[in-house]
Parts: sequence; C-alpha cells; structure tokens
Amino acid sequence: MIEMRRVDFQTHPSRYRHWRLEVEGRVANLVMDVDPSATLFDGYELKLNSYDLGVDIELSDALQRLRFEHPGVGAVILRSGKDNVFCAGANIRMLGKASHAHKVNFCKFTNETRCGVEDASESSGLKSLAAVSGACAGGGYELALCADEIMLIDDRRSAVSLPETALLAVLPGTGGLTRVTDKRRVRRDRADIFCSVEEGVRGKKAVEWRLVDEVVPPSAWTKRVAERAAALAATSDRPEGATGVALGALDKTITEDGIAYSHVIVRLDRATGQAEVTVSAPAGAPPANGEAARNDAFWPLRIARELDDAILELRTNEPTLGVIVFRTTGDAENVLAHDAFLDAHKADWFVREVGHYLKRVFKRVDLTSRSMIALLDQGSCFAGTLAELAFAADRQYAFIGTRPGDNRPAAKLHLSPMNFGPYPMSNGLTRLQARFYGEPEQVDVARSRIGEAMEAEDAAEAGLVTEAYDEADWDDEVRLVIEERASYSPDALTGMEANLRFVGPETMETRIFGRLTAWQNWIFQRPNAVGAEGALKLYGTGVQPTFDRERV
Amino acid sequence: MIEMRRVDFQTHPSRYRHWRLEVEGRVANLVMDVDPSATLFDGYELKLNSYDLGVDIELSDALQRLRFEHPGVGAVILRSGKDNVFCAGANIRMLGKASHAHKVNFCKFTNETRCGVEDASESSGLKSLAAVSGACAGGGYELALCADEIMLIDDRRSAVSLPETALLAVLPGTGGLTRVTDKRRVRRDRADIFCSVEEGVRGKKAVEWRLVDEVVPPSAWTKRVAERAAALAATSDRPEGATGVALGALDKTITEDGIAYSHVIVRLDRATGQAEVTVSAPAGAPPANGEAARNDAFWPLRIARELDDAILELRTNEPTLGVIVFRTTGDAENVLAHDAFLDAHKADWFVREVGHYLKRVFKRVDLTSRSMIALLDQGSCFAGTLAELAFAADRQYAFIGTRPGDNRPAAKLHLSPMNFGPYPMSNGLTRLQARFYGEPEQVDVARSRIGEAMEAEDAAEAGLVTEAYDEADWDDEVRLVIEERASYSPDALTGMEANLRFVGPETMETRIFGRLTAWQNWIFQRPNAVGAEGALKLYGTGVQPTFDRERV
Repeated sequence: MIEMRRVDFQTHPSRYRHWRLEVEGRVANLVMDVDPSATLFDGYELKLNSYDLGVDIELSDALQRLRFEHPGVGAVILRSGKDNVFCAGANIRMLGKASHAHKVNFCKFTNETRCGVEDASESSGLKSLAAVSGACAGGGYELALCADEIMLIDDRRSAVSLPETALLAVLPGTGGLTRVTDKRRVRRDRADIFCSVEEGVRGKKAVEWRLVDEVVPPSAWTKRVAERAAALAATSDRPEGATGVALGALDKTITEDGIAYSHVIVRLDRATGQAEVTVSAPAGAPPANGEAARNDAFWPLRIARELDDAILELRTNEPTLGVIVFRTTGDAENVLAHDAFLDAHKADWFVREVGHYLKRVFKRVDLTSRSMIALLDQGSCFAGTLAELAFAADRQYAFIGTRPGDNRPAAKLHLSPMNFGPYPMSNGLTRLQARFYGEPEQVDVARSRIGEAMEAEDAAEAGLVTEAYDEADWDDEVRLVIEERASYSPDALTGMEANLRFVGPETMETRIFGRLTAWQNWIFQRPNAVGAEGALKLYGTGVQPTFDRERV
Repeated sequence: MIEMRRVDFQTHPSRYRHWRLEVEGRVANLVMDVDPSATLFDGYELKLNSYDLGVDIELSDALQRLRFEHPGVGAVILRSGKDNVFCAGANIRMLGKASHAHKVNFCKFTNETRCGVEDASESSGLKSLAAVSGACAGGGYELALCADEIMLIDDRRSAVSLPETALLAVLPGTGGLTRVTDKRRVRRDRADIFCSVEEGVRGKKAVEWRLVDEVVPPSAWTKRVAERAAALAATSDRPEGATGVALGALDKTITEDGIAYSHVIVRLDRATGQAEVTVSAPAGAPPANGEAARNDAFWPLRIARELDDAILELRTNEPTLGVIVFRTTGDAENVLAHDAFLDAHKADWFVREVGHYLKRVFKRVDLTSRSMIALLDQGSCFAGTLAELAFAADRQYAFIGTRPGDNRPAAKLHLSPMNFGPYPMSNGLTRLQARFYGEPEQVDVARSRIGEAMEAEDAAEAGLVTEAYDEADWDDEVRLVIEERASYSPDALTGMEANLRFVGPETMETRIFGRLTAWQNWIFQRPNAVGAEGALKLYGTGVQPTFDRERV
C-alpha cells in the first residue's frame, strides 16, 4: 500500500511539474508533459503521460487560472508535450497500490475537474479542443471526452481507447462510459465493442463511430488544429483583451487542530469525529463598481477559494471526520449586499466567473461524502449565498432567541435571489427545488419572502430549517444528532447520502457521480480487480489475473 | 455461508407458504403471513414476517395471478396476517450468511417485483393499498412504498421505519431511499432523519412527513381500509366480472445441459461459459379473435413466461455462465401476425396484460448482468417482438446468405410497430431510441422500413445489427467475440453493461437499479457491513459492530 502524505491542493504555474499553460491571444495551449519522477507518493513512476492526483491538481489549477487570470482566452487546446502519447490515463501502479479511500477520492476529484472543463465551456465561454496525437488510452481519452471537440491525428498509430475492462478489470470511471453514451452518443453496440477492446479505434472509423469529431492527416495537423481552435474561440463571448485577476496564494494556516483562512475557519475535533467549518461575512459593503471588484480580495471569490480548499482538505487529509458542521458568523446585511452586487454585475466577466465558481464549490459540497449539519446559531449570517451552504447540508438546526450575556444577534435566515437559480445542483435543480420536490409551491412561498429576516421558529415553520431549539434544548439536541451520526457505519452513510441528496432528475454529471462512480467503487472492492490475483494488482507483472467467474 | 440450492421460480397459490390471495369482487387481499420454518435455505428462520427469496417468489406469482387470473380485481390490499407486525423486511440472518452474489440477485428480484406492483397500477389499472398495522420496518416499509396509497393504523405502536443504516450498516436497497425521495417526495432533511433513526415515525407525523397517506384510529381501521380500497378499485379500468385466464404449470424439462420449454430452449455450455437461449416462432396464425386468445397457450404469453423463467434460472442457478446468446427459429410471418394481433386487440384486457408482461420480461433481460449477444442466423425470425430481444442484447451479429446444403431461409430482420413503443426500457426509451440516441432520425428511418424483410447486410447498413458476416467468417468471428467476452472480469463487465445499456434519461426505476443498487452492492462488499465485525454479521448477537471510521 502507498504511504499517504498530506495532499496540498494549492499550486501555481511557476511550480507545475506536469503541465504548461501557454496563452497566445484568444487561444491557450494546455500542454500535458508529465514528469515521471514528480509523483505525489512513493512507489510508482508517471510514465507515458499517466497521471496521479498531483497531475490533476495542476490541471484543476490551470483551468482556474484560465478562467480568472486569462479572461480573453476563448478556446483552450488540450494537447500532449510528448511524442507518441497523448495520455495513458491514470497511473495503474498507483491505483494498484492506493487504498480504497484514495482511489475513490482521486476519481471524485478528477471527475470534478473534468466536469469543470465542460462548465468552463457552457458557463463561461471557454471552449476546449482536444488535439489528440499519439496513444490516448483510458483516462487519457476520458480527458479528451471533456472537450467540446476532439481531433485525432490520422497517422496509423494514434488511436483512442478505453481498455480498462479488458486490461484492468475496472471501468473507465472518470466519466468515460457516461460520456461515450450521453455526450458522444455512440451507438450502443459500438460503445460495447469500443469499451471492451484493448486496442481502441483510429482513423475514419473513430469519426464514423462518433468517438472523435475529425481525423486529420499529419501534414495538415498543425494548421487544422489552429484553425479549429480559432473557430471555437470565435464562438466565445469572453472579453478579448480584458485584464485578468491574479489568484494570489491563499491566506492559510494549518495547525494540529484546524485550518485558518481569511474568512473560513476549520476546527478539527478528532475526539468526536467532526469538523466545524465557519464562514465569515464580509467586513463591509461590496465594491463601488464592477471594476473595483476585480481582485482576489473580493469576498465572494475569497470564500469560494477558501471553502473549496477546506472541503478538499477534509475529504483527502481528514478521512475519519465523518460529520461537517457548517456555521457562519458576521453581518448578514453585508452578505446580502454582496449578493445584490453579484446579481447587479452578473454580465461582468469577473463577477460571472465568481458566480460559477461558487456554484461549483457548492456542488463539491453536495458531492462530499460526509454528513453535513448546518447550525444557525446566535450571531450567524445564513443569508443568500451563505444560506446555500445550509441548504447543501443534510439538516439545518436553528437556535431560538439569545443566550443571557451573549450580545450577538439572534439567528436569522435570509433568502436572496441567489437561492433561486445561480447555484444549481448537478441535477439541475436549485437546492430549494430539491428540498421541496414534493411541495413545489413552497419554493414560490420562499421566493416571496426574499428580503425578510426570518427568525428560527419562523424558518422552521416555512420548512427552511429542520428544527428550531431554544437554549434549554439546543446543546443536548445538537450533540445527540452529531453523536448519533458519528456512531453509524461511514459506508452506509455515504450510500444513503449519495441517494437522498440527489432527488429526481439526473444529468450526465449526476450519472457520472451516481451510477458510474458507484459501480466503479463496487469494482474497486472486488477481488477480480484488487485481490492479490486481481487484474489491477497484476497489471504489468506479466502474470495473468485469475478471475472468479461468478456473475452477480 | 448458506449452502445454495437450485431455486425454482415457479409456484402456485395452492403451494404458497407465506401469502394468501383472497379475492372478493373488485378488491383482493394479499395477506402476508410468513411461515418461519419454510425457508429457501437452511440456517435461519423467517420470524416477524421477514422474507427471503422464497417469500418474494410467491409475491411475484400472486401478482401475476391477479393480473391474469383475476382481471376483475381493481384494487389489491397488501396486509399482514400477523398481529403486531406488518413486515420486518428482508431476513437479516439470511442476508448475513448469504453470498454476495445471492444478496445482489435477491435484491434485484425483489426490486423487480416491487416495480411490478407499480406497473400493475400504472399499466393495468390494478391499484394497490398498503394497510399497515404493526411494525413496518426496512423491506416491510419498502413493500408498502410500492403501493399507490399507504394507510397506517394509529395505535401508538405501529410505525414505519427504515432502520437499515442505523442497525445493519446497509441501505434500504429495495427501492427505499429512492421511493422516499422520488415517489413520496419527503423533504430532504426529513428523509435524512427518517432514514437514519432506528425507531421510525408514526401517527400524524408520518402523514405530515409524507411517509404515509393517512393514519386511522383502530376503531375505524377495518371500515376505512375497505372504503379506501373500494375507492381505488372504482378508479380502475379493469373489466368487472371478466373471467380470468389460468396460468398452468410451465411445460419445462431440466437436464444437465439445459432447460427445455415449449417455445424456449436453453442450452448450457459450461466449458465456454455461455448459455444459448433459442425462442421459437409460433407454429401458426394467431387466434381468430380476442376471446379465442384468452388462454395460456397464446404464443406471446407462452414465450413471455418461458423467457422470464429462463432468465431467472440463468441469473440464479447458473452464475458462472457469463454470456447469453439469443437465437430465434421459425417463421417470421407467424411472429408478425401475432404482433399485428397484439396491436389490433390492445384494448382487450388479456392482450393488454400480455403486452405489459412482455415489456417486463424485456426489462428483466436489460437488467440481467450477463453479456448478451443476438445471433441472426440462417433460419432465425428476429421479427417485431422477437427483434426486441436482439435490440436488448449488447451486440447483434447477422449471417449473410445460406450455407450449402442448409435449406433454412437466410437471416432476415423484420421490424414491426412493436419495436416503436409498447416495450419501453426502464428509462422510458424504446430500445431503438436508446440505440440511436445520437442519431434520432435513424429511428424514423427504421420506422419507415416496417414490413420489410431486411437481409443481413441491409440490416447492418441500417445500423440495426452490429456486423454481418458470411460463411467464411461467421464461425470464427462469433467464437472470438464470445471467447473474448468470457475472458474478461465478470465484475467489470457487470459495471460496464449497467452503464452502457441505460443511456440518457433516468426514471425512478433506473435510479433504483442504477444509483441505489450500485451503492448497495458496494456496501455489501464493505467490511463495515459484511466483515466478521460488520453490522450485518453481528446483528442479533448482542455484540456491537466495530467500524472503520474512514470515509471514502
């Protein structure tokens, strides 16, 4: 088993070991050139542009920087910096040695990053082109699948393939199966063949089977890639020539018991198995205008980045803390003023990016396999954007009134227009639509209460929080809820939450995180894949796996 | 581990040990009164109306008999024959001792049966009422959840609950989580509480939380249940007073190498890991009119019953045969004439039932975790309803022309209106819509070819079969496809097929068999549930489980 070290999700292009981000006017090149020796853990080498979580953290960072620091880029070309190989997918030796939890978390993060490529195109006009030259296998093709267009060089060697089932006895679990059916819409029997042959498909057949959009002879490759990238960029509404906003290093201090950011504090309580995440309201009013907002101190961007990092820290570095308690603190009016600012300036490229980033962070919260409880306590400011954090939680408890000697204001819940559209879940519903799936009229009732400061009992009455407790009951009730939760099987809770949180409609995204991921996790537990004689363990050793032939 | 015996899915009310089917005019009572000693395997007792696969086989049989033998019944009341308990759910000792494969197959069959309760209401007007008196826990509540209405007696003891997570470290995997969110549409935080407390919910709160439709005081119970059942029956369009069609015993012979029915032959080839299922066309023309069709020799009913039983046999009793090859034989014109008959008489209650039964059988095929290959060979009759079997398969291979000395006609593919609506998959798409998800216009092209006898190459050209091979290639190609398939990990294939077969839209049904089932199967592999110190193993021993607290 690989020895796990603390994973740091923060990086910067100047420290990249695996990617080069090259911006040339409207088009950027994101060049994958993995350093085989720069692995996140010991015990494997990243040959043939294969990747581990460290490679993907850089990709995620590069995409963020394209969105914020390079607003004028209309299209990004995903390409390889190596001859003969585009990308060989996730590193198999790493997967073979990693713990189950690491495999699951690694896949989740890579899936989120790949959905982020699609979100950049759909939400922010950052179009993408996978320029596939060389072998493009497994996770490599799954990366290409995220792009708006896939071009394949027709050199009789380059092919796209999903050999996981044939070679490794696992699934193309980073969206591969889902995107082949739902995005590329490959005919089912062809998809079945493609996903069960080792060698992949190349040339005209790859186009005919809808696996790529175009094959191009080597002589025309460079020119044609540039043409298509320019054509994609021309469809983008990103502001040509705009100056980006540099994402500076996070203000972050890690101690034994927590992580402190500028506006997010994480307190780790290992004795009770919980982490408390407290988000602070902005200290003052929003900037005077859109231009004045354009820096990384803008509060909504700051909390997005800090919350995002905090959630990733908890997922990866604190696996035994099963309950996350969300708290907020500060002046709700300042939160609401920032919400109004976000709404008023939503046409501004930077504000648009911040809004979509918050959307993605809340989605990441939804997909976090921890039980989540929001505590609307005295002094809290669950208002608009921050109320969304409460609605992302599995339950919400509100404190009634004030404690003697505590002069913080009583808990109030405030709704804003931000609770009714800008932050959809991955199933396409707002969190209030999901909450009131059985009583859709309650969404309209809630909308009519935008602007109110709802007291605890009032919010409970409106169905917006689970329960309201006064001082006599609060401590015991909250403690019992968390203790009870922490006593259950983490696996059963993971499965339960993965089902209860995503009501009703499904999208390609929910199908990736639901159906595909759940089956992959199952396979990641099966001896045929991960047993001593399983295919994932034996890959590359020359020894053939021995399969239990029983179908279940 | 429980010693597995061959499971027989055929039964008859005269042999029921666990259920009583009592028909009184428009209303039937389906009374669950489990005989604790009549278990399917050794090593456990079915206390408190808990169930094993044997109990569910009887329920499935009873529902079929209500549909075919009692067409005048408009509503069925699901109730308990025991005091103090409605149903305690799946038997835990059985689950604790069963193999992984048995657990998975057991859950699949119970899920199909429960979806069948809903299909009976939606498709055939057989409304259902769960009259819950006594404890209704886990699978017991999941059974109630299938009904159109749930009534709960308000006796201060009777409650509904899903204690799986809290007590057993597994999910309410027989549709529980999905129906709580998608059918009952319980508010998310309440669903979270309900699914994580052991004791359940009773009385008015159960109504307020949408867990049941009505609570009734004991004094009014009998009368009120009868009233509601009568009201439901009054909404039914089933033909009052119609005479049913008795479902006689199947004509079935089991040998070492196969199972022979009247129109379905199953050949088991354990050396190559495949089962060959051959369906015969009807020997002659359809009956003269609707009335003449009403008996269990009606060919479409016969093949539905035989295919259904064959698939269940293969799933449960032949787990190591990973590939199912579908063949057909006989005169396509007779198949098409029966299709025309089904279409012309679809308003007839019996023909309607047969059509919906075929629909359910094809759904069962879709959900079977075996690789499926349809061979359109010389002498075959993949026409209309039988062509649906080809489209349910993962791939279709067609033989070009005829072999010297073989006077059977060349393979032809015939479409009929039955391929364009009556047999939707569980995602709501026809199999041709799913096949051509990327090229929906091809569905219209296919529809325009109804009535044609398409030759092998023609069908391949139209995208309706995967490949056409002539005699020079057929044997080798088909053998290679099956050999290759049989060489892969059965688990990876299961996961791959579960993703590729269900493109695009999702329904409550697909969410149960996809998201919920996949997570449950994962949990059924996790030590926290099934390890020596897992909750499922230790339940009832008084020893508390020890959980690995790591979240994944």
